[in-house]
Amino acid sequence: MTISWTMVMDFTPAFAIVTGEWNHSFAALRKNRECVIAIPTVDMLDKVVGIGTCSGADTDKFARFGLTPLRGRVVEPPLIKECLANIECKVTDIVRKHNIVVLEAVAACIDAARKEKRTLHAVGDGTFIVDGRRIDRRKMMASKLPWGV
Amino acid sequence: MTISWTMVMDFTPAFAIVTGEWNHSFAALRKNRECVIAIPTVDMLDKVVGIGTCSGADTDKFARFGLTPLRGRVVEPPLIKECLANIECKVTDIVRKHNIVVLEAVAACIDAARKEKRTLHAVGDGTFIVDGRRIDRRKMMASKLPWGV
Repeated sequence: MTISWTMVMDFTPAFAIVTGEWNHSFAALRKNRECVIAIPTVDMLDKVVGIGTCSGADTDKFARFGLTPLRGRVVEPPLIKECLANIECKVTDIVRKHNIVVLEAVAACIDAARKEKRTLHAVGDGTFIVDGRRIDRRKMMASKLPWGV
Repeated sequence: MTISWTMVMDFTPAFAIVTGEWNHSFAALRKNRECVIAIPTVDMLDKVVGIGTCSGADTDKFARFGLTPLRGRVVEPPLIKECLANIECKVTDIVRKHNIVVLEAVAACIDAARKEKRTLHAVGDGTFIVDGRRIDRRKMMASKLPWGV
C-alpha cells in the first residue's frame, strides 16, 4: 500500500503509521505483525499513486506496476527492488482507538548506486512536493542528536 | 517548541505528535490541552533550530528569536505572526505508552501574502530538505480524496 500518514517516534528506529479497517493491508499487518517500508523517489510517482488507488484484494500490485520483490534479511514480506531504501519492520503495538500501528525497524538497506534520490512529500490534496536542496545544521543541533555531530 | 515527529491521521483535521517528559512543553500540553502548530518556512531555519535547542524553562523564546505572538480565534496559546500558517489545536488524547499526543484542529489561517512559502523537512540527522517543485496528481487520486478533484 501507499501510505503518507507516517512519523518517526524516537531516535531509536521506531515509527508510527495510521491505517485501518478500510485498508486491505491492515488485516495483513495485524495477522503477520511485520511489514517493509519501501521509500520511493520522484521518478516512481505514478506507480506510487497507482498503488495507492487500487486494492491488493483484487490486484497483484508487484505485477501490475512492474516491481521486483526481494527477500528481506529478517521479515517475511518482500522488499521492493526499485525503491531507494527498504526498512524491515516488526509491528510492536496497534493503538486501536486511533488506528495507529507502531513499528520497530529490524533491518534496513539503501540503494546507494541509485542516481535519483529525491523523495516525495504528499501534501494531502493530490499534490506532491519533491525534495529540493539540503541544508546542513548538524553543528547547531549537536546537543539534540544522541550521536553528536 | 520545534517538533518534527508529526503526522496527519485522517482527512478530518486530526494530527499526532510525539513528545514526552523530557520536553518542557509536554507539561503545558497536558495541563492546558491546547496548542498552536505554527508552520515555518526555509528563511526561518536558524530560528527553528534555535528554538529546538533551548528550553522554555529558562528562555522567553518569542523575545529571543524576535517572534510576534498573535491572539488565536479559539485557543489560548498564541500564534506566531512570522510563520506561513498557524493551526489552532485541542488535545483530544494522550497515548502515554508511546508519548503520542493526538490533536484536533479547531481553526487555521495562512499568510497568503507571504512570498516565501517553501517549508522544511527534518531528515533527523541535523540536515533539512527544502521544498522543491510541486507535482499535481489530483485527477489520478480523485477516488481517494473525500472532496473529489
